[in-house]
Amino acid sequence: MEQRYVLSALVQNHAGVLSRVSGLFSRRGYNIDSLTVGETQEPGVSRMTIVVRGDESTIEQIQKQLEKLVEVAAVRRLEHAKAVYRELALVKISATHQSRSDIVQIASIFRARIVDVSHESLTIEVTGDVEKVDGLIELLEPYGIRELARTGIAALERGSLQLSLI
Amino acid sequence: MEQRYVLSALVQNHAGVLSRVSGLFSRRGYNIDSLTVGETQEPGVSRMTIVVRGDESTIEQIQKQLEKLVEVAAVRRLEHAKAVYRELALVKISATHQSRSDIVQIASIFRARIVDVSHESLTIEVTGDVEKVDGLIELLEPYGIRELARTGIAALERGSLQLSLI
Repeated sequence: MEQRYVLSALVQNHAGVLSRVSGLFSRRGYNIDSLTVGETQEPGVSRMTIVVRGDESTIEQIQKQLEKLVEVAAVRRLEHAKAVYRELALVKISATHQSRSDIVQIASIFRARIVDVSHESLTIEVTGDVEKVDGLIELLEPYGIRELARTGIAALERGSLQLSLI
Repeated sequence: MEQRYVLSALVQNHAGVLSRVSGLFSRRGYNIDSLTVGETQEPGVSRMTIVVRGDESTIEQIQKQLEKLVEVAAVRRLEHAKAVYRELALVKISATHQSRSDIVQIASIFRARIVDVSHESLTIEVTGDVEKVDGLIELLEPYGIRELARTGIAALERGSLQLSLI
């Protein structure tokens, strides 16, 4: 059964690692829903969060292939209930004098923040899991979405669970 | 003079585009500070936000090479004051009974949210530009940062400025 998996990896942060990892996925035709990467507290080490769809055996293969890359120091598949997942999206919506207060109200229900206002538009910053961000976007669609920038998911395991360098 | 530039690109969202774009950067030895990618409101179109360091002429070259890729529909260099930049970070910090309230107070100054609590740790979600996220991480360092997951920057131009498909 195809479902969504989240892999968290610690990698060396040199120029080629993003292209090595994304190349591994595209050559094999795997569907990446999102991939984010950023520095960690350890100098020279970045954390990559990859959201991928597939069945159980495909994900196992992917994990093994990631582990083989010399730039990859550790990989873990996150268990849904045992991790925190967050994405950030910036959404620019058409806003008239009439519609502005409706949009602000929707944003406030989603604990989203207004980060830019013009005569014709509002830009909203929202964070949450994919479902929450999708939900806000769907509600805002009737007003006219002008632009959208999403970061993709970053994730950490809950509590004292921790991904460590080997 | 080397400085930080932000490029925003509209690209076809098929499997190979991330590896094509990141390969272009790594082959030429360009330093990517961050790269985020996500779907837009247009079916089949993703937006990529690339933060890169270099001098004026290097950035011009990068922009031209991106424009040549068939998967890239539009590229724009964002002007610092005319765009909104946001990153999300999840930070897991060691927290004792004694230090917890200090950490919560620091988080609240940064309008950051506590997203997980355990006996030994707190996980904080913070959003902002790179400087704000770096600033919070620096303040939290003395407590012991256990894990860090950053998405990289997403960006949109302010007001009615807009990147369109050609």
